[in-house]
Amino acid sequence: MNRFEHIRHKPPTALETPRAMILALAPMRSNVNLSRIVRLCGCVGITKIIHCGQGKVDREIARDAADFVEVLQRRSLLPILKQLREEGYRMAGLEQTTNSTCLYEYKFAERTALIVGAEREGLSQDELNQLDDVIEIPVYGRPYSYNVATATTMAVYEYCKQFPGYSPAQ
Amino acid sequence: MNRFEHIRHKPPTALETPRAMILALAPMRSNVNLSRIVRLCGCVGITKIIHCGQGKVDREIARDAADFVEVLQRRSLLPILKQLREEGYRMAGLEQTTNSTCLYEYKFAERTALIVGAEREGLSQDELNQLDDVIEIPVYGRPYSYNVATATTMAVYEYCKQFPGYSPAQ
Repeated sequence: MNRFEHIRHKPPTALETPRAMILALAPMRSNVNLSRIVRLCGCVGITKIIHCGQGKVDREIARDAADFVEVLQRRSLLPILKQLREEGYRMAGLEQTTNSTCLYEYKFAERTALIVGAEREGLSQDELNQLDDVIEIPVYGRPYSYNVATATTMAVYEYCKQFPGYSPAQ
Repeated sequence: MNRFEHIRHKPPTALETPRAMILALAPMRSNVNLSRIVRLCGCVGITKIIHCGQGKVDREIARDAADFVEVLQRRSLLPILKQLREEGYRMAGLEQTTNSTCLYEYKFAERTALIVGAEREGLSQDELNQLDDVIEIPVYGRPYSYNVATATTMAVYEYCKQFPGYSPAQ
């Protein structure tokens, strides 16, 4: 008798309520990064991403998350941020700034808009000024910055850990 | 005065002691996934990966983590697992199995070997039999499985959260 045996095609964890997190992304230079984030969102049950720019989701990477995650294309991030704020989202950006909160300690609001800057530029000052919180992820070594999809993965994981989607009694 | 202002070229968090985690990877089909994991390791201060197979690190993706993370190429995973066990690592695999522990609740040993299966096949029964723990990450939606580098990112993030690398007093 083996202690660990593969479970193939295990059913996913059912969310008691739909995910209240939304992602807003500055124009990604890389469709690979965009597509990886789409797959991530599909896997965790996030159903809506707002992406600025002309990015195209690569189905080879996103797999069938491409059918389940709505990717809204918009021209620029700033008006989106103002709109999400009006819709009552807690505005949390992923960036290295003054007065940031370490992701290890950050308590997510359930209704959070996670704002992610582009690969090189990050978020502009006008965009930062729309945020309630800036979340920062400690970096320990070279190349001193996480890939944008990797950083997004960490933040989304932490959110899911805080909102695991099922009752503790389960 | 802006509340959040960019900090460019912020110095990394200094680790008080070197990272005691090591990664052992089954043969990755994709050099992109391998290279993303190398960059991740560079950023968190993990200095050693054992990879089975002929993968090649793409420096465009790994950036200068390629110079700081040693990637040992080995023929097959099973002898590596036996060796790591003898070297006193807690053997933790990332997989969907019976008797797995949810990553949300998993308490890492500082000296952990994180064992990651290949993209499609995962870990074999012989490999699973070498493990102390299997860690599982909840999936909530399509495509019902995380990309291998994404899953590795979540596990490594959780490890770093538990071993932030600095004293609480800091």
